[in-house]
Amino acid sequence: MSQSSTQHPPQVGIIMGSDSDLPVMREAAAVLDDFGLSYEMTIVSAHRTPRRLYDYAETAVERGLRVIVAGAGGAAHLPGMAAAITPLPVIGVPVKTSALSGEDSLLSIVQMPAGVPVATVAINGAKNAGILAAQIIGASDAAVRERIARYKRDLESMVMEKVARLEREQAAGD
Amino acid sequence: MSQSSTQHPPQVGIIMGSDSDLPVMREAAAVLDDFGLSYEMTIVSAHRTPRRLYDYAETAVERGLRVIVAGAGGAAHLPGMAAAITPLPVIGVPVKTSALSGEDSLLSIVQMPAGVPVATVAINGAKNAGILAAQIIGASDAAVRERIARYKRDLESMVMEKVARLEREQAAGD
Amino acid sequence: MSQSSTQHPPQVGIIMGSDSDLPVMREAAAVLDDFGLSYEMTIVSAHRTPRRLYDYAETAVERGLRVIVAGAGGAAHLPGMAAAITPLPVIGVPVKTSALSGEDSLLSIVQMPAGVPVATVAINGAKNAGILAAQIIGASDAAVRERIARYKRDLESMVMEKVARLEREQAAGD
Amino acid sequence: MSQSSTQHPPQVGIIMGSDSDLPVMREAAAVLDDFGLSYEMTIVSAHRTPRRLYDYAETAVERGLRVIVAGAGGAAHLPGMAAAITPLPVIGVPVKTSALSGEDSLLSIVQMPAGVPVATVAINGAKNAGILAAQIIGASDAAVRERIARYKRDLESMVMEKVARLEREQAAGD
Amino acid sequence: MSQSSTQHPPQVGIIMGSDSDLPVMREAAAVLDDFGLSYEMTIVSAHRTPRRLYDYAETAVERGLRVIVAGAGGAAHLPGMAAAITPLPVIGVPVKTSALSGEDSLLSIVQMPAGVPVATVAINGAKNAGILAAQIIGASDAAVRERIARYKRDLESMVMEKVARLEREQAAGD
Amino acid sequence: MSQSSTQHPPQVGIIMGSDSDLPVMREAAAVLDDFGLSYEMTIVSAHRTPRRLYDYAETAVERGLRVIVAGAGGAAHLPGMAAAITPLPVIGVPVKTSALSGEDSLLSIVQMPAGVPVATVAINGAKNAGILAAQIIGASDAAVRERIARYKRDLESMVMEKVARLEREQAAGD
Amino acid sequence: MSQSSTQHPPQVGIIMGSDSDLPVMREAAAVLDDFGLSYEMTIVSAHRTPRRLYDYAETAVERGLRVIVAGAGGAAHLPGMAAAITPLPVIGVPVKTSALSGEDSLLSIVQMPAGVPVATVAINGAKNAGILAAQIIGASDAAVRERIARYKRDLESMVMEKVARLEREQAAGD
Amino acid sequence: MSQSSTQHPPQVGIIMGSDSDLPVMREAAAVLDDFGLSYEMTIVSAHRTPRRLYDYAETAVERGLRVIVAGAGGAAHLPGMAAAITPLPVIGVPVKTSALSGEDSLLSIVQMPAGVPVATVAINGAKNAGILAAQIIGASDAAVRERIARYKRDLESMVMEKVARLEREQAAGD
Repeated sequence: MSQSSTQHPPQVGIIMGSDSDLPVMREAAAVLDDFGLSYEMTIVSAHRTPRRLYDYAETAVERGLRVIVAGAGGAAHLPGMAAAITPLPVIGVPVKTSALSGEDSLLSIVQMPAGVPVATVAINGAKNAGILAAQIIGASDAAVRERIARYKRDLESMVMEKVARLEREQAAGD
Repeated sequence: MSQSSTQHPPQVGIIMGSDSDLPVMREAAAVLDDFGLSYEMTIVSAHRTPRRLYDYAETAVERGLRVIVAGAGGAAHLPGMAAAITPLPVIGVPVKTSALSGEDSLLSIVQMPAGVPVATVAINGAKNAGILAAQIIGASDAAVRERIARYKRDLESMVMEKVARLEREQAAGD
Repeated sequence: MSQSSTQHPPQVGIIMGSDSDLPVMREAAAVLDDFGLSYEMTIVSAHRTPRRLYDYAETAVERGLRVIVAGAGGAAHLPGMAAAITPLPVIGVPVKTSALSGEDSLLSIVQMPAGVPVATVAINGAKNAGILAAQIIGASDAAVRERIARYKRDLESMVMEKVARLEREQAAGD
Repeated sequence: MSQSSTQHPPQVGIIMGSDSDLPVMREAAAVLDDFGLSYEMTIVSAHRTPRRLYDYAETAVERGLRVIVAGAGGAAHLPGMAAAITPLPVIGVPVKTSALSGEDSLLSIVQMPAGVPVATVAINGAKNAGILAAQIIGASDAAVRERIARYKRDLESMVMEKVARLEREQAAGD
Repeated sequence: MSQSSTQHPPQVGIIMGSDSDLPVMREAAAVLDDFGLSYEMTIVSAHRTPRRLYDYAETAVERGLRVIVAGAGGAAHLPGMAAAITPLPVIGVPVKTSALSGEDSLLSIVQMPAGVPVATVAINGAKNAGILAAQIIGASDAAVRERIARYKRDLESMVMEKVARLEREQAAGD
Repeated sequence: MSQSSTQHPPQVGIIMGSDSDLPVMREAAAVLDDFGLSYEMTIVSAHRTPRRLYDYAETAVERGLRVIVAGAGGAAHLPGMAAAITPLPVIGVPVKTSALSGEDSLLSIVQMPAGVPVATVAINGAKNAGILAAQIIGASDAAVRERIARYKRDLESMVMEKVARLEREQAAGD
Repeated sequence: MSQSSTQHPPQVGIIMGSDSDLPVMREAAAVLDDFGLSYEMTIVSAHRTPRRLYDYAETAVERGLRVIVAGAGGAAHLPGMAAAITPLPVIGVPVKTSALSGEDSLLSIVQMPAGVPVATVAINGAKNAGILAAQIIGASDAAVRERIARYKRDLESMVMEKVARLEREQAAGD
Repeated sequence: MSQSSTQHPPQVGIIMGSDSDLPVMREAAAVLDDFGLSYEMTIVSAHRTPRRLYDYAETAVERGLRVIVAGAGGAAHLPGMAAAITPLPVIGVPVKTSALSGEDSLLSIVQMPAGVPVATVAINGAKNAGILAAQIIGASDAAVRERIARYKRDLESMVMEKVARLEREQAAGD
């Protein structure tokens, strides 16, 4: 894990309902490393450690967090409950499930009632959750926003490389 | 509301996420009145009053509750969060929603992770939630169980009356 | 199978529609073993042995059962038909199916009509069905309820161990 | 109700889970009247009158029925349970429901396990259930089959009349 | 293939949209062999051989067929188009598909408009389609009906053997 | 109906399964009128007039049609069966249904097997079917293509007028 | 519209695909008025004014916007395309549709590919989109964050008033 | 790749959102090779190369394209955005996705608003997209239409060969 993740205080809190969500949620951390943003990453289960969830969300502002990324699957309550407690923006990552493929996770996270939004990304979309966290910080930080703009240009370049490779293949195939 | 609902202490706690759920959830109360079981009914919003939810669920056993009936719609976290905190059985009522007809409520309530069950009934099935609460109390109370058995016989009689009425209609129609 | 499962009379009846459901339903039995609650486990098919279903449910109270756990898949009628016949609380476990992943099982079990509830848990949620059975017995048995409270604390401890392990990994990774 | 419905013994048994299903299920009766086939129509609730369901299905052959049409909504167990008990063909009509529009009824009826089929028609498709009952009787009765063939020709004529009317409208509109 | 399948004329026509449906549809043939009923089995594609479909359905009665079993996947039009042309009862088997798991096949087959029913069985339920074909023939043939009744008793015996085996395992496990 | 619809021969055939689809399907005709393209519009039911469907599709090329627009609801077989018979491009309009809101129509139309495509538009998207028919003709007719380009500019202008109106409202509201 | 909406430059851009989305999207504006945040609101159709969409998103940063709220229904491409072009965070509001109730809108908005997130809220959740926009600005603005914290306390108070009212009703009802 | 694909100018443009879509989309190219129609195939990402998408669609007519085939998965905006910009007909291929099996892709592509159609084929239906492109060209080119008619006869022959093979197997099996 790069140094950025241990800067103090972390700007982004990455939490997940279970350690089985780690392979998915690490992608959010990896993106924040790329953007040079500090974060903390831990397990907070809405259903198995409800008091810990409460404490985590309650102290998030005073500990310096600026955005929370929360991943959970099935009847996924972690993002919505964190959002109920903290005034910070909360990004929800619906984790794919074995029976319903994450449709349950998605609806449990995105269909929040009026008053308490969760910024929901795609099923297993932890990478995008990391990017969105960076965009939120970038909303008031021109340097971070410029890194995002550069990231978008890099995405474009990667596609253009693939375009070129496909062209070469087609030329060779004729 | 019948006297039974104000007996002390109440045996069943009926909670709901919003007063818009009241028309649905009153059916649970009505059934408990019919079974002569005491209850309390109030609003506890997981998302708008998270502390109240913690306090309610945390003190449920000591206040003498034996089962909790929780109704909520959309990203419905109330039943699952109550079940996370209290050792009592929690019955979840998925309330019908305007966009997704309660499919979101159902999945948010029933798809709980291993360790924390919610006894889920049908969409808008508050009446059945009340009956199930009575059955749970009746699991160790022969008198209540007998009332449930009688209730089942009454259901049967009501169907048989409709059978007779339909027969009369058909005879008259010939 | 621990001794608890052969205590007489069993308190919980675990039934399933097919022996193909055994790998899932054994988790309910395992949890009841953990809680020291007696149970019986057998196959009762609503569709292939309808009379056996009728007899099983009809005699459940007199045989001393206090709650029934019923698992079935597809057009899953076992939990609902048992609930139609016995006044005991019936917990339904929707078993995952190959074509529709258990969505059919879930709707066939949870969407019961007014008058006859089934306490439905998650798709393949047999472990939670066992816990819910214990909670139902615990609703009127403080000793069992205390075991559930302890189980919840154990769940919390297990999460906290994983939290610590992740922290060590992150510290080592820096 | 026309005389055909009171011929003895009835050839088709039309049953439904609730009198609220009557407006839908009467369409099956009407079609059988049109085809001159005798039937009986009554209420049999799998969940509220389970014994009646057993008796009805068990005696169906000896009472002379040749096919059963069963309509039910939600966790719709009536068609499948009837099919579990009788060797006669059972036609299932998934009745539209308020929350899930009959998707629950459809899956509860059609997804039967190997060994016990239910001949399922469309949601609220009681008219087609009546036609299918006639086709089943017509499978070994050339006179009935000829009435079905004539019915199909009538359907065609009705469409052709609408074709002509639309053509006249278009000609007039020019 | 047993002799029964080549008796002349066949009583049941088994058709399918593609030879990729053969592994599923053979189960219908196998059941008819068990019941001693004659059948023919071939490929008729609504979309690739529409004239063949028309001819097949048009001549079905005169060739002595009494019921048609039609399996198809995706936008599955074979059962419904056969039912549009022949007055015989048509049983539809929705074949499981790779993207939508047969939900597309199911809706394409079961949701037929008023006037033209298809007797739909479960996704990949070809075995049940065969049983249903036998039940339809049995509706007017007591000998076949008795074979179905015996089949149901055999199903019951098979379950009871599994019950006994599970009991032995549990006794051994204690 | 404008004169364009009676030019001979019509370039577009608009067909629908039932006259109840007329209010939806007229929108396709209206758009073709706007584009000055000739069409014919009639009722062809796959299920009630299968021979008519065969004849219609079989003679489509020789009668001068260049594209067919076919609307149907439920188990909607008309577009796919027309596409099975004619080499012309077929546009399918899934008509909204009362129980499943057109999800059945959509899957019945779009999920065609390899070899026989149907160009599917949105549920009730008859207007877009008309535009697509024009685009297909415009693929080799620069004048028609220019009309489509102009139509797109008109769409843009209509939005810009609404933009201006909203601006005026906001200015007035301040 | 309050003065806050005309402060220069606006901090939040509210865009929608069609003026039919206005009744929903005005709720986002109303919340921003409550929070005292400036915004602009206009119509930008991805499909009817694609150039305008490009220009709007391309110039968003230089015009001083810090977050974009985009609402659209059906095949809803506006939020995702805006997010493709601007480095700012984009909040997507899936607007309810007549046929599929917004399930199409939701999936079209939330299921973005890796690299380009859209912060999705509930179907018709424009109010929450406004709150989320405020939270995003509040991530680096303590005064705004304090207004959000106060808003959460107000939500809590409103629930507590309803609790009190329900209690009075119950007391009166006894 | 056959020579046809390098004829100048290409008649069909095949684009896809990501090189991971290539295995699916190559089937469209293969069919066009079979029909002897020229095409170009490249990657155009709506979300990662929005300007490239704009340019591609804007210049499509002048570069001589007559139809565009666009494949994309998830929140699939490529087909709809291309259709927003070019007056040419656009065929959309919903690519199967890992979580939602392409249901998201399908709805994102097919549910276009009035004014901007996308001719949608089945999930992963790239082969059919190629055939449809040929049919669109064939709408005004009798030679191409004849190739399509021949293709349909070939499909029929291939089915008839399978019919014969199955008959031989059955004869051998007796």
